[in-house]
Amino acid sequence: MQYRFAPLLEELPSSVPFVGPEHLERESDAIFLARLGANENLFGPSPKVIDELRRNASGSWKYGDPEFSELRVLLAAHLGITEEELIVGEGIDGLLSYICRMFIEPNDCVVTSEGAYPTFNFHVRGYGGELSQVPYSSDHEDLQGLIQESKNTNAKLMYVSNPDNPMGTWWEESVLLETIESLPSETIMILDEAYGEFAPVGTALPIDTSRRNLIRLRTFSKAYGLAGMRVGYAIANPDLISQFEKIRNHFGVGYLSQVAAKAALLDQEYLRIMLAEIEQSRQSIYSIAEENSLLWIDSATNFVAIDCGHDGLFARKILHRLQDNGIFVRMPGVAPLDRCIRVTCGPPEQMELFGEVLTKVLAEES
Amino acid sequence: MQYRFAPLLEELPSSVPFVGPEHLERESDAIFLARLGANENLFGPSPKVIDELRRNASGSWKYGDPEFSELRVLLAAHLGITEEELIVGEGIDGLLSYICRMFIEPNDCVVTSEGAYPTFNFHVRGYGGELSQVPYSSDHEDLQGLIQESKNTNAKLMYVSNPDNPMGTWWEESVLLETIESLPSETIMILDEAYGEFAPVGTALPIDTSRRNLIRLRTFSKAYGLAGMRVGYAIANPDLISQFEKIRNHFGVGYLSQVAAKAALLDQEYLRIMLAEIEQSRQSIYSIAEENSLLWIDSATNFVAIDCGHDGLFARKILHRLQDNGIFVRMPGVAPLDRCIRVTCGPPEQMELFGEVLTKVLAEES
Repeated sequence: MQYRFAPLLEELPSSVPFVGPEHLERESDAIFLARLGANENLFGPSPKVIDELRRNASGSWKYGDPEFSELRVLLAAHLGITEEELIVGEGIDGLLSYICRMFIEPNDCVVTSEGAYPTFNFHVRGYGGELSQVPYSSDHEDLQGLIQESKNTNAKLMYVSNPDNPMGTWWEESVLLETIESLPSETIMILDEAYGEFAPVGTALPIDTSRRNLIRLRTFSKAYGLAGMRVGYAIANPDLISQFEKIRNHFGVGYLSQVAAKAALLDQEYLRIMLAEIEQSRQSIYSIAEENSLLWIDSATNFVAIDCGHDGLFARKILHRLQDNGIFVRMPGVAPLDRCIRVTCGPPEQMELFGEVLTKVLAEES
Repeated sequence: MQYRFAPLLEELPSSVPFVGPEHLERESDAIFLARLGANENLFGPSPKVIDELRRNASGSWKYGDPEFSELRVLLAAHLGITEEELIVGEGIDGLLSYICRMFIEPNDCVVTSEGAYPTFNFHVRGYGGELSQVPYSSDHEDLQGLIQESKNTNAKLMYVSNPDNPMGTWWEESVLLETIESLPSETIMILDEAYGEFAPVGTALPIDTSRRNLIRLRTFSKAYGLAGMRVGYAIANPDLISQFEKIRNHFGVGYLSQVAAKAALLDQEYLRIMLAEIEQSRQSIYSIAEENSLLWIDSATNFVAIDCGHDGLFARKILHRLQDNGIFVRMPGVAPLDRCIRVTCGPPEQMELFGEVLTKVLAEES
């Protein structure tokens, strides 16, 4: 008996956007000493969040509020918007999947940068969308190129991350504003701000959901240190936000995830302290690069792309050798970005270990 | 500017499968004294699970293993199958959504029972499927009717829950086996076993994934008491299981959710104790019905449908009066099932409270 799958499914490759560090650990039968590849927040969530998780662990028998009302009230107050202008979802990954489903029909055009977030591409293809990928320009997403390609293809969706992943570069708000204003009004700009809290003041646009063709995505996975709890949110015009109700998994954000997100949002003091630690860590990665006579790319995120000085093959060799020595890192997937490895910020001892191993590995490979 | 949504989205109603108890609490500005409506496990998860959640709360900065390898190994051993025969997902709701996406094209036929799980219907319609709904027969899902309707409509999917939700009735394995064998070989039978652990021995079929047209869904939300952690799993032929990779959210099952599910599975002793408590609670709901001169439906789940003795309007009045008095219950959505209210099992003090309030409410309404 042959399965009668939807034709769209039959066409999809069995590709996976990311291999997890656990997979590599199983393959090598060794645990990583430093987990610097997934842009998790190695400083962890606020102690108050951990306390709340412990205090509420015995409530894990409860479904989460499908309207996450308390969290939504807190977020709306924090952002200075109404509750109708935001929706909470199962991380940015989950929200990207919903957005693709809401808009994409087979062969619809979607524009992104070549080498940008693979999981977005996975979802676009998953709904049959045609991806147009614009090369980076000087390690920045090429906003003019993205606008032009959106016009050329009559794109339904255009994806930008600011600050950018995987390079860590960023655009100031004024540049982003020009981009939105130059975009065809019917092209929805997905602005992925996963790393927004790490960026300098003046990176994030003021929130204005009267721009109907803009949807902004944020998360508790990065600055708030809760990647393991799967909570993200989208900010957009209420006419767009309301459409999520038609398709989302209403009980998809669990009870403890909501507990954690609420506690995290309420501890802005910890966020401030942690951002200072990230800044220190970023500086230490720059120093490590410099000490090893490598270039790096200034970052507005909790990771740094280090230019290994040769092509992608060389950088990949360095990456594998780092992994062999217990340091998990990742790297961009396409040239010329793939001359870099991408290193997540972490506490001093992990940075020190990374520096030592990098020096050793570079010496072996040169 | 008009949004260019996919036409499928435009056609969907803004309906929500379930209103959460938190919504009702906000409306009435009062907290429920007993939360007996969502079939959560009021006995909660194993103390060992709660310990593990507390112990690992500080690890919530980590993404969950996208292959949930440790959990999958444990599940495979527990079920006596290979890891290729199962996939873990974001609760049964998440898995149902994936299954609908994998199979359904607009206007494909899907068969279910009239009054069965609304979230399944939500996902079927969400992917453009046409639902054929077969009435229950004597408060059981009408297997012969479901087979016949699957044949008539050339259904791609046919949904059965065993034990059944919302009535709590069940079929023995031999009857289910006949059903699968009588079904068109190209119709996939989705067997929702969310309440399977509560059912008598002889309810669950032996696992045999060589039946290519059967996919079984199970969860940690019910017997294992972890509704708030969103972990379910599907068991099927590896050719079907492998297709989930093409569309699932690979990082959708968070770190703490995996921690909780692993610990729950390893504490089978607690499961045994808890099932005995549920059995006692079920008996106490039967007694409450009897004391109030009401009929009840024998249940193989952690809830009991109590026949309020009149039509749906009357049962709904009782339900609202119970809610007004702090008791959250739900009820089936269609006649004749809606002569009943559905009451979740719970600890003795909650059952006692329910009994008192029910007696009072019935006296007021008679």
